Amino acid sequence: MAVSDLQRAEIDAVRSEQTPTRREVAPALEEVLYEAIPVLDHGFVRVIDYMGTDSAIVQAARVSYGKGTKKVNEDAGLINYLVRHRHTTPLEMCEIKFHIKLPMFVARQWIRHRTANVNEYSARYSILDKEFYVPKMEHLAAQSKQNHQGRGDVLEGAEAAQVLEWLKNDSAQAYEHYEQMLNMDAAGNVLDENRKGLARELARMNLPVNFYTQWYWKVDLHNLLHFLSLRADSHAQYEIRVYAEAMLDLVKKWVPITYEAFMRYRLGAVSFSAPAMVVLKKMLAGEKITQEQSGLSKGEWREVMTALEMPLE
Amino acid sequence: MAVSDLQRAEIDAVRSEQTPTRREVAPALEEVLYEAIPVLDHGFVRVIDYMGTDSAIVQAARVSYGKGTKKVNEDAGLINYLVRHRHTTPLEMCEIKFHIKLPMFVARQWIRHRTANVNEYSARYSILDKEFYVPKMEHLAAQSKQNHQGRGDVLEGAEAAQVLEWLKNDSAQAYEHYEQMLNMDAAGNVLDENRKGLARELARMNLPVNFYTQWYWKVDLHNLLHFLSLRADSHAQYEIRVYAEAMLDLVKKWVPITYEAFMRYRLGAVSFSAPAMVVLKKMLAGEKITQEQSGLSKGEWREVMTALEMPLE
Amino acid sequence: MAVSDLQRAEIDAVRSEQTPTRREVAPALEEVLYEAIPVLDHGFVRVIDYMGTDSAIVQAARVSYGKGTKKVNEDAGLINYLVRHRHTTPLEMCEIKFHIKLPMFVARQWIRHRTANVNEYSARYSILDKEFYVPKMEHLAAQSKQNHQGRGDVLEGAEAAQVLEWLKNDSAQAYEHYEQMLNMDAAGNVLDENRKGLARELARMNLPVNFYTQWYWKVDLHNLLHFLSLRADSHAQYEIRVYAEAMLDLVKKWVPITYEAFMRYRLGAVSFSAPAMVVLKKMLAGEKITQEQSGLSKGEWREVMTALEMPLE
Amino acid sequence: MAVSDLQRAEIDAVRSEQTPTRREVAPALEEVLYEAIPVLDHGFVRVIDYMGTDSAIVQAARVSYGKGTKKVNEDAGLINYLVRHRHTTPLEMCEIKFHIKLPMFVARQWIRHRTANVNEYSARYSILDKEFYVPKMEHLAAQSKQNHQGRGDVLEGAEAAQVLEWLKNDSAQAYEHYEQMLNMDAAGNVLDENRKGLARELARMNLPVNFYTQWYWKVDLHNLLHFLSLRADSHAQYEIRVYAEAMLDLVKKWVPITYEAFMRYRLGAVSFSAPAMVVLKKMLAGEKITQEQSGLSKGEWREVMTALEMPLE
Repeated sequence: MAVSDLQRAEIDAVRSEQTPTRREVAPALEEVLYEAIPVLDHGFVRVIDYMGTDSAIVQAARVSYGKGTKKVNEDAGLINYLVRHRHTTPLEMCEIKFHIKLPMFVARQWIRHRTANVNEYSARYSILDKEFYVPKMEHLAAQSKQNHQGRGDVLEGAEAAQVLEWLKNDSAQAYEHYEQMLNMDAAGNVLDENRKGLARELARMNLPVNFYTQWYWKVDLHNLLHFLSLRADSHAQYEIRVYAEAMLDLVKKWVPITYEAFMRYRLGAVSFSAPAMVVLKKMLAGEKITQEQSGLSKGEWREVMTALEMPLE
Repeated sequence: MAVSDLQRAEIDAVRSEQTPTRREVAPALEEVLYEAIPVLDHGFVRVIDYMGTDSAIVQAARVSYGKGTKKVNEDAGLINYLVRHRHTTPLEMCEIKFHIKLPMFVARQWIRHRTANVNEYSARYSILDKEFYVPKMEHLAAQSKQNHQGRGDVLEGAEAAQVLEWLKNDSAQAYEHYEQMLNMDAAGNVLDENRKGLARELARMNLPVNFYTQWYWKVDLHNLLHFLSLRADSHAQYEIRVYAEAMLDLVKKWVPITYEAFMRYRLGAVSFSAPAMVVLKKMLAGEKITQEQSGLSKGEWREVMTALEMPLE
Repeated sequence: MAVSDLQRAEIDAVRSEQTPTRREVAPALEEVLYEAIPVLDHGFVRVIDYMGTDSAIVQAARVSYGKGTKKVNEDAGLINYLVRHRHTTPLEMCEIKFHIKLPMFVARQWIRHRTANVNEYSARYSILDKEFYVPKMEHLAAQSKQNHQGRGDVLEGAEAAQVLEWLKNDSAQAYEHYEQMLNMDAAGNVLDENRKGLARELARMNLPVNFYTQWYWKVDLHNLLHFLSLRADSHAQYEIRVYAEAMLDLVKKWVPITYEAFMRYRLGAVSFSAPAMVVLKKMLAGEKITQEQSGLSKGEWREVMTALEMPLE
Repeated sequence: MAVSDLQRAEIDAVRSEQTPTRREVAPALEEVLYEAIPVLDHGFVRVIDYMGTDSAIVQAARVSYGKGTKKVNEDAGLINYLVRHRHTTPLEMCEIKFHIKLPMFVARQWIRHRTANVNEYSARYSILDKEFYVPKMEHLAAQSKQNHQGRGDVLEGAEAAQVLEWLKNDSAQAYEHYEQMLNMDAAGNVLDENRKGLARELARMNLPVNFYTQWYWKVDLHNLLHFLSLRADSHAQYEIRVYAEAMLDLVKKWVPITYEAFMRYRLGAVSFSAPAMVVLKKMLAGEKITQEQSGLSKGEWREVMTALEMPLE
């Protein structure tokens, strides 16, 4: 379970209050504000706060005094133009703050995106809960044969069962020894009065990276979309992609016009290299071209033909 | 005048609307939201949006689920601790967006602070207004004799009058030729149908750096306080310091507890070097020390003695 | 003239020394190290220092212990892959430091790229030289009719001559008054013993933005290429584009393999949006499509057809 | 052992080559370039490349054409001034690149410093070695009673022995299951032809955070010194402090003048808050003050008195 009863009550309490503000409000995002959207077996994504809406982007692009909006379709035209031409600074004028609970190996990938503000739960200061990620059977994939950092077929039968058993047992045992080393359980009860207990900053080193951590993560809209363009992509590891997909839904509620522009011009866009453009123009002129003639590497040829839904030969 | 009648009306319109929100609200800052606070002869500072309050800092430090606040004095204790020990990441969880109108030479200093988001009014795209900074008589200072980048005595009489005349006339003439080169006035009227008019991106090069520009500037609280610690300092140039002072007042309305901690532990703090600490301990032990014995350079000795309000000899 | 005789001698002196190093060396870049490459009428670009070569990118991608290079064509394959798939972190492992002399209005655009280190010549501390940019006659373009921030036809005859006269005279007069206000010339001679002289930080405000400034600018290769992809683009203002072009030549000397990958996959690449991809696939299937049927705006349609070298109708 | 024989040979090969360069060279750092300096039981710090020396800081501060150096003591005077007054931009003109091998829990702390470039060894792509950190007996400390995130007394006897056994056994078992899940050992040998083997990106999740990872880490001198001021501090966790101390030695070889300034004005400096300054002045005037009268919290009072080597009462 992602959220305890106590946490649920805290969330409900903070959701129940409303205050008038002169700031811009994103109504659909207010609906889900503070709610924990479940991801994986114990994780979640929560929006804690936000600044600006689509119209803040328009205001900033115009450096305007008032609301800066004229009509919805004019705003959409401007935002489409900005996203298509990568005029990214107006998108930096919107900001969002998430509370995320995620396995440490996902956190290690995530933190590589440096242009964000982060406060992580400290295992030097506090005791971590006994919560670790175990994949569902259908996500236990073999190493890909083609892609050095991807997944292939799903494991089956005894092999899959064995993997799950190792993951569960090793994690459970690591946590038991963690508590023993601390000489304290997660609730703060001392286990044995005759032992001192190892410092938290040391005991934590016994925990595997499938244990959950959590953090506050604050980012501007431009950098968030960059993160999502990489992490909602099909090449991203499944365990981070599900977070990106949950956040993409939240972006849609927050800044619906920008969301549409992003899907059109970024996530759904395809880039053709200079030599690929030469190939494309020849093909449009009716010429037949093979990979050998194209000047493209086999890898790029495959990517180009796949994007164009053309046969590889 | 910093704001035109039209702009005043736009500001009033946007101020008149209130919407309920589940987000945290900073009541004293809401009072002045969107208002143009005048700075220098034509400049201003306006808060356009903000995210978080003092309690967001506490929440982030605790990675909490609810409001994260317990009691005001506990929050103050935690915030004081964070600021004193330079645990800066929780302060990054608050964000503010300003609309600033400022002379270009001030903008050139300001932009050196890179950890902020900026959208500037484009003189490639639009025509700049005829607004330029002319210092008041009492700010026309001579070059400092001691400080290579500071001010000394105020100029007087004929010299001061002559300086003001040059500044005004050269700026007025530069603007007149700017319009002539554009073959267009600021309202968009063509001046001479037989001329083409120089491109805006070229004509702007004739304007001196005392002309006003404007931008949206968005920054997190940690980086804002860093900016203010440098620019509200007595060594900062007067023309940027007045902006910093106006913003410091706004910080006080926004996050009053953090403001107090900042005044205590940052703006009002003094740092003593390792050899200065040796001197200090000797002085506390009743020893008499001279600059020569101290191991400090003359410059550092003067700074230390001044901070301690001790005679320089 | 971009560089004085004294500066020329300093450059020659520093170029004449060689020292053995265990670090990687870029031979073609060493050839031009410290040299001032002229740009515009008084500006230049100089490479002051650099870190890494193409093989540093390969090393970093492999987190290797030795040189990390195997064969040149393997390195090229890896670098092409990295650039094509926007795996940008290995490119951040190369760093370069420039000394740039440029007009202030160019500097104001340039500094918007925040991910770089900058030290600018201080007009609070020192007196600026009498050097200002005046465009060549053939660069005096009119405002574009199509593009709100671009150039159109070149001005001619009396209009052009008049513009040049204004630019030259206003700059010369501004500088004369700058010296008068300072009561000092650029060589440090006091002009009138009976005057105090205005502080430098104030007097500078009289100078127009076509005056030259200079700075040290240090950046990693990834961020440099991002800068160049925007500023060497045909939509960039001519006066910054010429700097980008000079730097692009230097990149070619420094990291020739990465330069080729950049020209292929970034500067020469074209991005097609999701709806443009639909259009493209239909066209490849032999279908006739008009802008109205395409779902693309007129602007995007024009861009797509231009990229494909197809008629706009 | 931090480095294998093969890696040792690669390091020796790269160290044996020298090439002439026109760039500035730091002789003492060249001596140890590429060498693996051991840290903890399997970790190391290696300098891979660097840009600039002390004189590059002076050059940048002066935006000079030549070497920028005059005399060593003038350079020292300027660098001391820059560091004392936190004029940090000239320090950003030096850059250094490290290859670091470190336990994952140390890497997780380290990566919070965002202003650096990082390439980490990928456990999605490659198989991790069987190398994990086990503290020496004398570093097995209990949780501190005073400090929520610090260490207290060292564990002894049976408790310590038990902790070490858990750490070693759990790590060894986790690694054994990691290989079993991969169905492959670190050398790439398939273990059982009848199994598919779990994808690397999944199997890694079984490994605890005391396993070693490695990365290339590149940073400018200003940000490095900021990192060191926090991580070489006595409050930093021992396991990261030993890395900071090794790097501090390397800084001393690289930029000896800046190193001295850093020790004087940053690492050895003490900051007194505004109310602490009031206390200090009273004490210098011979007044007796207690914590209650001081306006300082108990925590701050203790810090101030400790810094001044005064009794706490």
